[in-house]
Amino acid sequence: MIRPADASRSDPNLTVRFPVLRDFCTEALLRTGLSQADAATGAEVLATTDAWGVFTHGSKLLRGYLRRLQAGGLRVQGQPRLSAEGGAWALVDGDSALGLVTSAYAMQIAIAKARLQGIAYVGVRNSCHFGAAGYYAWLASREGLIGLSMANDIPSVAAPGSRGAVTGSNPIAYSVPVAGNRPLLLDMSIATVAGGKVYAAKERGDPIPENWIVGPDGRPTTDPSMYPASGALMPAAGHKGYGLALLIETLSGILTGAGFTWGVHSWMTEDLSAPTQHGAAFVAIDADAMMPAGAFGRRMEALVDEIHSAPKADGIERIFLPGEMEWERYDRAMQDGVRLPSDVVASLREAAALVGMDVDCDLG
Amino acid sequence: MIRPADASRSDPNLTVRFPVLRDFCTEALLRTGLSQADAATGAEVLATTDAWGVFTHGSKLLRGYLRRLQAGGLRVQGQPRLSAEGGAWALVDGDSALGLVTSAYAMQIAIAKARLQGIAYVGVRNSCHFGAAGYYAWLASREGLIGLSMANDIPSVAAPGSRGAVTGSNPIAYSVPVAGNRPLLLDMSIATVAGGKVYAAKERGDPIPENWIVGPDGRPTTDPSMYPASGALMPAAGHKGYGLALLIETLSGILTGAGFTWGVHSWMTEDLSAPTQHGAAFVAIDADAMMPAGAFGRRMEALVDEIHSAPKADGIERIFLPGEMEWERYDRAMQDGVRLPSDVVASLREAAALVGMDVDCDLG
Repeated sequence: MIRPADASRSDPNLTVRFPVLRDFCTEALLRTGLSQADAATGAEVLATTDAWGVFTHGSKLLRGYLRRLQAGGLRVQGQPRLSAEGGAWALVDGDSALGLVTSAYAMQIAIAKARLQGIAYVGVRNSCHFGAAGYYAWLASREGLIGLSMANDIPSVAAPGSRGAVTGSNPIAYSVPVAGNRPLLLDMSIATVAGGKVYAAKERGDPIPENWIVGPDGRPTTDPSMYPASGALMPAAGHKGYGLALLIETLSGILTGAGFTWGVHSWMTEDLSAPTQHGAAFVAIDADAMMPAGAFGRRMEALVDEIHSAPKADGIERIFLPGEMEWERYDRAMQDGVRLPSDVVASLREAAALVGMDVDCDLG
Repeated sequence: MIRPADASRSDPNLTVRFPVLRDFCTEALLRTGLSQADAATGAEVLATTDAWGVFTHGSKLLRGYLRRLQAGGLRVQGQPRLSAEGGAWALVDGDSALGLVTSAYAMQIAIAKARLQGIAYVGVRNSCHFGAAGYYAWLASREGLIGLSMANDIPSVAAPGSRGAVTGSNPIAYSVPVAGNRPLLLDMSIATVAGGKVYAAKERGDPIPENWIVGPDGRPTTDPSMYPASGALMPAAGHKGYGLALLIETLSGILTGAGFTWGVHSWMTEDLSAPTQHGAAFVAIDADAMMPAGAFGRRMEALVDEIHSAPKADGIERIFLPGEMEWERYDRAMQDGVRLPSDVVASLREAAALVGMDVDCDLG
């Protein structure tokens, strides 16, 4: 079921078949006391994210979620539930359940309501980190709807002119069905770069570009060692990224009754036994309710074909649509297995230890 | 009613009281045969945009709209109408009426439906350039709702890896009511900078930063003379701006049945007697339907207060919320008059000539 990526045992990467990876995550979550259904949902989110090659947000997160489930900050018996609803909207109280479970539940409600009303908004409070925003957007596009997904997070990004962090890196994702193609899938944060890229430069001892972080004086710096202790990420495209951060904060944090900005707590570093108060928001739009059946998908296909055939810059072979790289990795992963990088393997090893499993036995 | 900004007549700027500017635009539009109601709507959009200090999208556009109304590409008898609707959505056929009129009509429908359903989407086809996206978002926040507004446009922005333009600069705006404050108001394009900034650098003979445009080979260039003949604007934050452009194109162009990408025509340079096929999209969200009355606005106020009081970077006195600069200009304009820059005055002079008016008599 598993094989080292290279013949040599010294290769720290690990290639594992998708169902094995998913089942490993399911089993680990089950061992915390989570229900079979919730464990399966959480595992599907993490393994799918790895299959897309987005390893920063896949099963690498399992360890942290297990810790929080064991400490009680995430409630193994938590049951996300509708706390209020209307024609085309609902608010979900996540009950401090696993954020992946609450988010999938919320998007399913958005999909069902959008099928009736054309569009629907579902806001979530009492949630936690939700992994890859793109997964929930894809839940909608998989069913033929346009999906949007977003969440707030602890402040890590400066505003133009602020000395330190003011907003979260507030991810936003969308996915759109396309006839004859995989859906468009964009998943981005509103920061110029992920904090992980700053850490990597720090480890290498490299300077960073001037638009990545501000230092302790609030001014741009090329010294990565400032982050996160005395610096903050810069918003993508300055006031544009900052403005989007506030829109996401509004829809995920303010409108939902969740925590916002400094009212959100780190799911990794703060008290593992307390809820983190993350908020999130999900929107689904049923294009087929608005156009003759199939017309929307075919118009999307025409857009995609047009961009694929647009003239390329010197030295460029392809113009990618959002998600196209992820779907190609996904197809390879489903055929050849998911090649987990060494940092993910190391994290899974620690996750396994938390719940009495063994990566080498259970994945290998 | 009007006074030169300086005592000297050589000052090419002109300061004019808001109602005078608005009435001037109304009268000019009326002279093309537009109804009183539509002329008043269009004039209100343009004059308000000037009051915000967004002079690129205010009454400077009047000249071009008049030309199109006179040539028939914009229909003076055009009547935007619902072409299809459901619980929380509607599609509007703009009937080639003035884009400002169609857009205000569409947002009013979104507001009405959102009051019933919590959220609503209204898509528009057969429209034209709609001026400042922010105006329509503000129509919603003025009524206590969250508003979003967006539109597509002729391609002017490259995709990562494309040689030329692939998407429009696709504006998106949002506005959010805030207790005790003016609403948040962000109005941005998905390009790194507006084309006008490239023209300005070309006129001055200055080089431009490396992330503004790509040249004829599809590679970044610091030579502004390449644009627009043989270059294209770059998307803000690379794949992020490109991804947002496609989301806006999807909601404004694809889902509405409007033209998209190269199917949209320039409202300024192409056949003045033919429709331009612009699309647009409007979303309203009724926060007060989801929370106890006033709670949302007070939570927004807490967010705004928190950001205002965040530590400032060295040399920075204030951290601005989106729209705050515009509202301060608006207040000054309402008190002291709108100080129109010389390029706007010149454009208004030409607009006046098109309909037999005289800026010096009718504004001065």
